[in-house]
Amino acid sequence: MNYDHFLSATGRQLHESAIRKMGTLGVRIPDLVSFAAGFPDPLGFPWEELRAIAAELLDGRDGTVLQYGATRGYAPLLEAIRDVMARRRIRSTTDELIVTTGSQQGLDLVARVLLDPGDVVLVELPTYTGAISAFSNVQARMAGVRQDAGGIDLEHLDHVCQRERAAGRRVGLLYLVPNFQNPTGLLIGLDKRRQLLEWAERRDVLIVEDDPYGVLYFEDVASEAETRAIKADDDRGRVIYLSTFSKTLAPGFRMAWVAAPAPLTARFELAKQSMDLSSGIFDQRVVDLAIRRGVLEHLAPQLRTLYRSKRDAMERALHAELGDLLTWPEPKGGFFLWVRLPEAVDGDVLLARALQEKVIFVAGSAFYVDGSGQDRIRLSFSHPAPDRLREGVRRLAAALAGVRAPAV
Amino acid sequence: MNYDHFLSATGRQLHESAIRKMGTLGVRIPDLVSFAAGFPDPLGFPWEELRAIAAELLDGRDGTVLQYGATRGYAPLLEAIRDVMARRRIRSTTDELIVTTGSQQGLDLVARVLLDPGDVVLVELPTYTGAISAFSNVQARMAGVRQDAGGIDLEHLDHVCQRERAAGRRVGLLYLVPNFQNPTGLLIGLDKRRQLLEWAERRDVLIVEDDPYGVLYFEDVASEAETRAIKADDDRGRVIYLSTFSKTLAPGFRMAWVAAPAPLTARFELAKQSMDLSSGIFDQRVVDLAIRRGVLEHLAPQLRTLYRSKRDAMERALHAELGDLLTWPEPKGGFFLWVRLPEAVDGDVLLARALQEKVIFVAGSAFYVDGSGQDRIRLSFSHPAPDRLREGVRRLAAALAGVRAPAV
Repeated sequence: MNYDHFLSATGRQLHESAIRKMGTLGVRIPDLVSFAAGFPDPLGFPWEELRAIAAELLDGRDGTVLQYGATRGYAPLLEAIRDVMARRRIRSTTDELIVTTGSQQGLDLVARVLLDPGDVVLVELPTYTGAISAFSNVQARMAGVRQDAGGIDLEHLDHVCQRERAAGRRVGLLYLVPNFQNPTGLLIGLDKRRQLLEWAERRDVLIVEDDPYGVLYFEDVASEAETRAIKADDDRGRVIYLSTFSKTLAPGFRMAWVAAPAPLTARFELAKQSMDLSSGIFDQRVVDLAIRRGVLEHLAPQLRTLYRSKRDAMERALHAELGDLLTWPEPKGGFFLWVRLPEAVDGDVLLARALQEKVIFVAGSAFYVDGSGQDRIRLSFSHPAPDRLREGVRRLAAALAGVRAPAV
Repeated sequence: MNYDHFLSATGRQLHESAIRKMGTLGVRIPDLVSFAAGFPDPLGFPWEELRAIAAELLDGRDGTVLQYGATRGYAPLLEAIRDVMARRRIRSTTDELIVTTGSQQGLDLVARVLLDPGDVVLVELPTYTGAISAFSNVQARMAGVRQDAGGIDLEHLDHVCQRERAAGRRVGLLYLVPNFQNPTGLLIGLDKRRQLLEWAERRDVLIVEDDPYGVLYFEDVASEAETRAIKADDDRGRVIYLSTFSKTLAPGFRMAWVAAPAPLTARFELAKQSMDLSSGIFDQRVVDLAIRRGVLEHLAPQLRTLYRSKRDAMERALHAELGDLLTWPEPKGGFFLWVRLPEAVDGDVLLARALQEKVIFVAGSAFYVDGSGQDRIRLSFSHPAPDRLREGVRRLAAALAGVRAPAV
């Protein structure tokens, strides 16, 4: 039976995530090394503390631990998140906060509540694929803005915004990952952050600030001060801030949040009612206690050290195996190297070859809404153990040699 | 700052769940008795088994327990769900299954993948409010179909379908809760289920069969055989079946699933990618082990006995306090009494008065898409302890006396 005539416009045009597709592959090929997904290292998960918290919550004395809960989120967790935000220098009230099932749901809430088909979202070239999926799946139009070494190009931003408006389109949102952007690892400078806020006010645009990696700066090349959120200076209510516990605690709980002006948060809450009623209640309770007991705070410096050492291992392996063949902007935090390929090597072609060598990554084209990016790949160094990192790079070198060999 | 001009059509028209609204109230009023939300009784949660499972999963030996996971669901859980389905006499393959963040996400997936604005969903009068929300929030049109004592009226169903099609509208879906419907508690007979399948084939409609309560039949008035899912006889691929572990294990894990023809499930998976990447991984692992260790199987008869005894307690209290003033169709399973009010008593007016008496329920009008239902209320007996059930009924009696007293 053919079901095509039952599908909605959304159902017909669903966008497939290149990263998720790679993840599916990863499961099927034994001995594969994956530089594809941005998985955190399970060595960084606070197993012991979580086990103690779970045992305590499940002692049966408090039935609400496994009951349905409020759509907005478990009230004490919202307060704990307010404190997490305060430590990031962001003032917020609980009526501006909502717990989401991963930041992906935050992106979907933004998409559904704020975007009609054909509306424009301004995004960077390149940008995060999960945002591309969420915006695509409400049939929004994404207009790409160039980057320079300091992140988004302000002049081009204004040009693209005005160009889209001149064409009669509604331009309401700018999507950014200012801290250690996925995929580039770039950090937007503090000056530019202030200019972005002023620009958003001048052009009547809302900034969607996605901040999964801000806590994970590398202390040799970046400081906490440099990660100050745009939201921290948002006196006018121009910023919708998204963050998550997936990278700082564990992704398996799917715990994230959105901080937005209260009238928007109220809309997100209504939308979320029909999306999943609420995020996992038990998960919320675990994360709440992990914050209150200082697990999150205690863990952060350890994670900074862990991922810095993995970045080092990856960079060393790349230099050892490939010399100067590959280049990348120095990542100042986060999970990724954004690699420029040698001339005439195409990322998608390389990926096909790399698969034969049992190593995968994400081809750069997945991050571009303008069809470009063939000359880049994203290598995630966050998950594999050091020996697997080295083995993966050896395989990558073999794949590169394969595609660069002159055809016979 | 006013944000209205940033909202999408969806964002402007979001539907608020009457049940969720009651839930918010419940939190704020001390000593309130709630007959509003269909919360399971935490006495029925298998605390000890869950505590053991959680401790084992969090021992740190398997990093994937807290990692990102596949959008479709944890593969062994999908297999376990296939076995749960088989025990319900429903054949399915894992490519027809997808794990969802509560059945609410299943409804949202159906809505987004299959409904364009203005498309028609056929629903019963009355029907489940969560479905109304999900369908409303994609701007679908809901056309109400009358019920008789045996559930949906087939003649009226065909009439409404043909009427809507004659008006040029796309009618692709019929939404049903055949087992112990929320809110009526009605059970659709086996003959009628077969006729519904034939009808769906004849009219080229898909049936969305929502089955949260099927396992919770009351053994004095219903049998397992009577709960046979429509999906069990779906040889043609006409049924999208939704079920959940919220009522048979615990709602706090937000674990549910959809079983649909493989091409539709593939679409649901793509849509879910951009909605939350995946449902809670830890939650999936817990539920997987709870099924494999027989916790679910072992629990079901206990839950049938528990909720039957709560139904009895509620019915006794109502008869004791109110004699024959209120009437309801005998529920054969599930969580609810669907109560007809005395003449000239309006459910919404009664609710306002009941709030003063510190008891709440859901006014019948919330379940009707045609604006009717003022003469009904839904009383959930599943959650309150027996003494609270009786206290709540006393308060309800006081509220009723208040609204029936002749105005001075």
